[in-house]
Amino acid sequence: MFKDLFKIFTMKLKVGILGATGYTGAELTRLLVRHPRVEIIWLTSEKFSGKKISEVFPHFRNFLDLDYTSVTKLSSLEYVDLSFSCLPHGKSMFFVNKLLDRGIRVIDFSADFRFVDHETYERLYRVRHPYRELLREAVYGLPEIHRSEIKGARIIANPGCFSTSVIFGLAPLVSKGLIKEGSINVDSKAGLAGAGRAPTLELHFSESNETAQAFGVNGHDQKPEMEQELSSLNGGPINIVFVPHRIPVNRGILTTIYSRLEDHLTHEEIRGIYHAFYEKEFFVRLYVKGKYPSLKNVRFTNFCDIGLGFQEDVLISVVALDNLGKGAAGQAVQNMNIMFDFPEVEGLRYTGAYP
Amino acid sequence: MFKDLFKIFTMKLKVGILGATGYTGAELTRLLVRHPRVEIIWLTSEKFSGKKISEVFPHFRNFLDLDYTSVTKLSSLEYVDLSFSCLPHGKSMFFVNKLLDRGIRVIDFSADFRFVDHETYERLYRVRHPYRELLREAVYGLPEIHRSEIKGARIIANPGCFSTSVIFGLAPLVSKGLIKEGSINVDSKAGLAGAGRAPTLELHFSESNETAQAFGVNGHDQKPEMEQELSSLNGGPINIVFVPHRIPVNRGILTTIYSRLEDHLTHEEIRGIYHAFYEKEFFVRLYVKGKYPSLKNVRFTNFCDIGLGFQEDVLISVVALDNLGKGAAGQAVQNMNIMFDFPEVEGLRYTGAYP
Amino acid sequence: MFKDLFKIFTMKLKVGILGATGYTGAELTRLLVRHPRVEIIWLTSEKFSGKKISEVFPHFRNFLDLDYTSVTKLSSLEYVDLSFSCLPHGKSMFFVNKLLDRGIRVIDFSADFRFVDHETYERLYRVRHPYRELLREAVYGLPEIHRSEIKGARIIANPGCFSTSVIFGLAPLVSKGLIKEGSINVDSKAGLAGAGRAPTLELHFSESNETAQAFGVNGHDQKPEMEQELSSLNGGPINIVFVPHRIPVNRGILTTIYSRLEDHLTHEEIRGIYHAFYEKEFFVRLYVKGKYPSLKNVRFTNFCDIGLGFQEDVLISVVALDNLGKGAAGQAVQNMNIMFDFPEVEGLRYTGAYP
Amino acid sequence: MFKDLFKIFTMKLKVGILGATGYTGAELTRLLVRHPRVEIIWLTSEKFSGKKISEVFPHFRNFLDLDYTSVTKLSSLEYVDLSFSCLPHGKSMFFVNKLLDRGIRVIDFSADFRFVDHETYERLYRVRHPYRELLREAVYGLPEIHRSEIKGARIIANPGCFSTSVIFGLAPLVSKGLIKEGSINVDSKAGLAGAGRAPTLELHFSESNETAQAFGVNGHDQKPEMEQELSSLNGGPINIVFVPHRIPVNRGILTTIYSRLEDHLTHEEIRGIYHAFYEKEFFVRLYVKGKYPSLKNVRFTNFCDIGLGFQEDVLISVVALDNLGKGAAGQAVQNMNIMFDFPEVEGLRYTGAYP
Repeated sequence: MFKDLFKIFTMKLKVGILGATGYTGAELTRLLVRHPRVEIIWLTSEKFSGKKISEVFPHFRNFLDLDYTSVTKLSSLEYVDLSFSCLPHGKSMFFVNKLLDRGIRVIDFSADFRFVDHETYERLYRVRHPYRELLREAVYGLPEIHRSEIKGARIIANPGCFSTSVIFGLAPLVSKGLIKEGSINVDSKAGLAGAGRAPTLELHFSESNETAQAFGVNGHDQKPEMEQELSSLNGGPINIVFVPHRIPVNRGILTTIYSRLEDHLTHEEIRGIYHAFYEKEFFVRLYVKGKYPSLKNVRFTNFCDIGLGFQEDVLISVVALDNLGKGAAGQAVQNMNIMFDFPEVEGLRYTGAYP
Repeated sequence: MFKDLFKIFTMKLKVGILGATGYTGAELTRLLVRHPRVEIIWLTSEKFSGKKISEVFPHFRNFLDLDYTSVTKLSSLEYVDLSFSCLPHGKSMFFVNKLLDRGIRVIDFSADFRFVDHETYERLYRVRHPYRELLREAVYGLPEIHRSEIKGARIIANPGCFSTSVIFGLAPLVSKGLIKEGSINVDSKAGLAGAGRAPTLELHFSESNETAQAFGVNGHDQKPEMEQELSSLNGGPINIVFVPHRIPVNRGILTTIYSRLEDHLTHEEIRGIYHAFYEKEFFVRLYVKGKYPSLKNVRFTNFCDIGLGFQEDVLISVVALDNLGKGAAGQAVQNMNIMFDFPEVEGLRYTGAYP
Repeated sequence: MFKDLFKIFTMKLKVGILGATGYTGAELTRLLVRHPRVEIIWLTSEKFSGKKISEVFPHFRNFLDLDYTSVTKLSSLEYVDLSFSCLPHGKSMFFVNKLLDRGIRVIDFSADFRFVDHETYERLYRVRHPYRELLREAVYGLPEIHRSEIKGARIIANPGCFSTSVIFGLAPLVSKGLIKEGSINVDSKAGLAGAGRAPTLELHFSESNETAQAFGVNGHDQKPEMEQELSSLNGGPINIVFVPHRIPVNRGILTTIYSRLEDHLTHEEIRGIYHAFYEKEFFVRLYVKGKYPSLKNVRFTNFCDIGLGFQEDVLISVVALDNLGKGAAGQAVQNMNIMFDFPEVEGLRYTGAYP
Repeated sequence: MFKDLFKIFTMKLKVGILGATGYTGAELTRLLVRHPRVEIIWLTSEKFSGKKISEVFPHFRNFLDLDYTSVTKLSSLEYVDLSFSCLPHGKSMFFVNKLLDRGIRVIDFSADFRFVDHETYERLYRVRHPYRELLREAVYGLPEIHRSEIKGARIIANPGCFSTSVIFGLAPLVSKGLIKEGSINVDSKAGLAGAGRAPTLELHFSESNETAQAFGVNGHDQKPEMEQELSSLNGGPINIVFVPHRIPVNRGILTTIYSRLEDHLTHEEIRGIYHAFYEKEFFVRLYVKGKYPSLKNVRFTNFCDIGLGFQEDVLISVVALDNLGKGAAGQAVQNMNIMFDFPEVEGLRYTGAYP
């Protein structure tokens, strides 16, 4: 109790956000304005630089009174304890490097620090990665799996939204080497806010409403990320087939994973393995037999809900999370809580936004 | 500061909810599980009696572990400081009466205690109202207008969702007698959760998606409620024309009000009157000239956003709120906060659920 | 019968479309590929010039095999009997003028020829109108009202979508001088395809889904158009208050009109006047007492559905049509049918796209 | 030409529909009222028996003026050339049998005649199948595969919507024995109208909007149907894993099929096999390399669009169709056209309902 009382009186953590006017930046801002231990010091935006936050996002009125500033002024911005970067891939790393130089710890939403080896990154994004040491230093920010490394990290590579869903859906078995290599097919259905706030024909309302479509069929950027993490858990190579789809909802990812097991395990043994893996995790909810997650129970939360089913010898893991929540900003806040020794659920105890 | 510290140590307020598995009951539960000064003691439901809350609403898992009980067992339920009733019109009053008999204060979501005179109620609902004294005693729970009476009330008649939007859109002028009687046309567009959780053909997904429809054209139940409150504010009769419409969103009401003024006032004078009326209210946000509210900025909140426009001598007030939030459960929590001397915004400081 | 048989053997009408890759152009193409008496000869598009139609719009595969061409090549395009122009306001008139010079009749979707006097146009669009004689010559293409003038017209100004809904909702009474001037408030709810195919933040899926918003509150472009036509029908000035709203559906306009009558007429007399006005019109469906139109019954059609209600002495006309159908492309095809002496319903006998 | 002229003068085909007020019945009615060679003689409905069609479905006003009658009066209904049955599984077969007794040919939408052996049916639906000879006689109504048998059939078992999408996505390879048994995972995303018109909590707007969910994870009714047909095409057993999902659109199924090939074939060879299989089929559209179908291009049509992709040695077939169109009523009309020697595309040449 005294410790808690003490915390009430302590200073708040000062944070900044680079690229705060995309959807992940806006969601992060939304979470942080309600976080009791955090004070937002600055927010950058190139498009809305100089504008008040409530002018760009009226829902922040009565919550935060700041102007967006340009990232080009980064060096003159006030020192903060932590900066989040929601800048795009290929651009983020330069600013992350600058922040680290000033002694500011960073949680980076881009893919710039997600890969252990620079070759994968360079092949995917077709740019040279000049910060290879930082790549090696960065911690992949999946708290349920890398909690201890996150605590002391200077750079967190915040995982991709699809990757988070796939890794959570397979980790208990893969980490025991129980999934048959080459048997994994992953089918994700994603809400459109995950595709960003920049207007495009594909995301135009009348084009994307009342329809659904596969994309990235021949290879999505997050596939190597999933494979890297699953291979590392497995202690041997894991290759997956991954096809994401767009469905007309704002938020959420529903991922259905089809896989086969190496050995024969009963359904109950498999459930037991998942249960043991996640039983202490507040943000992972395992569904009982016959029940499967849906987006409505995880929207606007940091939860990852998992249901398991079987058809003959194929395991079907159904995973639901919010692509802006556990798939991005929520997970980043969870990482921050760990890094700064706050209760891990602080600022994240929200029920799904139902109905 | 000491007072606040004291409050941290005090007991939580014990509350119960009658009819907790409709949408307003579920929303109220959602708000209360996060309210720092409240403990939910019991929840009733006839349809789901005996079931665990997380079985009916998986989004409550990890938040609340209670079983629904039947309202028929009300007399044997634990004493609480406050009960909310989300029971339907005509049924609620009987249970409200029982609660009061046990010395339990009540916030009632139904229309059963909204009317000053029993005749209006009886004409509307075609049933006799046996609790005429309670009718006179009940306080109409619009905090921004009846704050002081709410504080000491035993029964709060929680206002209708449409009524709240219309009253807020007109109150500043009506209370000064500035609106020309007979000139008010109100057009509301409402999300479908406001129509309840019971499955009907009209609310079936494929029937209500990709369409819009007027309803209650020849007289909606909340029209007399609006007229009663506006007339009271005006000090003379106010009659309105009111047509609600269903639009395919889950939550939110957008109300557009067309009215004419008695006297000539400049646009700036009118804005000034609204500003003066609402300037101390956290939950009412007046938009600047040329800007109008939209549902996305008020979804899942207790805010009521208002924008003003003009065409010739007609004033156009555009009002947005969440029908389950400021239009129901949020407003009820605000009333509770006032009744029990909590900070009025406690448990209600949420930004709009964007995007 | 012989006349019909004869028509089967006759040549098809040759038509072209300027600006064929916006939503009205795409809808017009969709209607014309199924029209038994029409052959599309060319389609222009600046953005997609040189591309195959089925590459831009896969739904046209197996229906039409043409490449889009640039409007800059208009003079070298094959002669057609009729051209539609779906070019934007201010740009369309120049090309319409060129088409007329080549002896090609035109149906213009823009506002360029909708106003009788050039001053209104010039005030609204802030550009000079160089074709004042054509303005006077152009016929306002509301078939149910101007059928006889349409027949012989060289230029049809195809009406605005909102205007069509408002004029149909008021015409029977206004044309008898029965509506009290200054009493008309019009509230429209419109699907987003009516706002065009160019990607903007406002029409971005995650911005416009699950919300609703008023726009043009201080004066929409189609307001003078409605007033001009209603005043003409009335034989005296009609001023209206008009506020359109965006709702998250692809197609459709639901317009609710509030007005007061000059004289006392019974509800049945008013219904009788509407009935008499529309009884011979296939595309106008008057609803019986107590029933109101909804978008789902008019989507993808040329119908205009009307329901009437009353609150005290206020008449409430609820009108539903498809903004791309009766509000644009459907009405244009109806005008074409009249101009070329085809059965008026040819190519337009579609039921609503339900569910 | 003379043959065509002749047809213009011939009598129309007389048809009846059993169970005409569910979504498949309504869609079938919608297609038939516009079919030039068909006259609807009667429609049955238990729920709406005695009501006018336009009272139940206002979109049919001006198109068809019939009252629904009860199926209990079947024996006294006028003789027709063909009856469709949209009655539910387990109920339909009794009425189909009666129709056949009167010499009326039948297209049955239920699963009652889809299985070759009665055991599969009886295991799935847990009822005895008393019409085993009819089971053997019935033709599985996939025109692109069983065209010649359909022509002379007395009973057509109209295929399931999911089955149609899966069979079309695999038939070219399966019929050559090229797919590796045990490698097929099928993930379908379906619009909600496919789940029927009866109101349920799951299909209630606010429950099913802005979410997505797997269902039938442990075994869907249409899985044995797909397996039966694919095994028959393959000449050896084909077992699949099949998980359908609900997504918030009215219509459409997007099916993504993951499979491995027995032999090594190049991508171009695989495309060639699909091309050869479907090149004469109007209603199957194969997409070019890198393009994938979406629901918007097939909504309200009888098309089945297919795109092919690859990840390592896994073939990904993406299939889109309308569950009420090619997945039900459209396919039934196509079957009728074949049975009665009409042009196969008659009454079905609709582009997708875009946007």
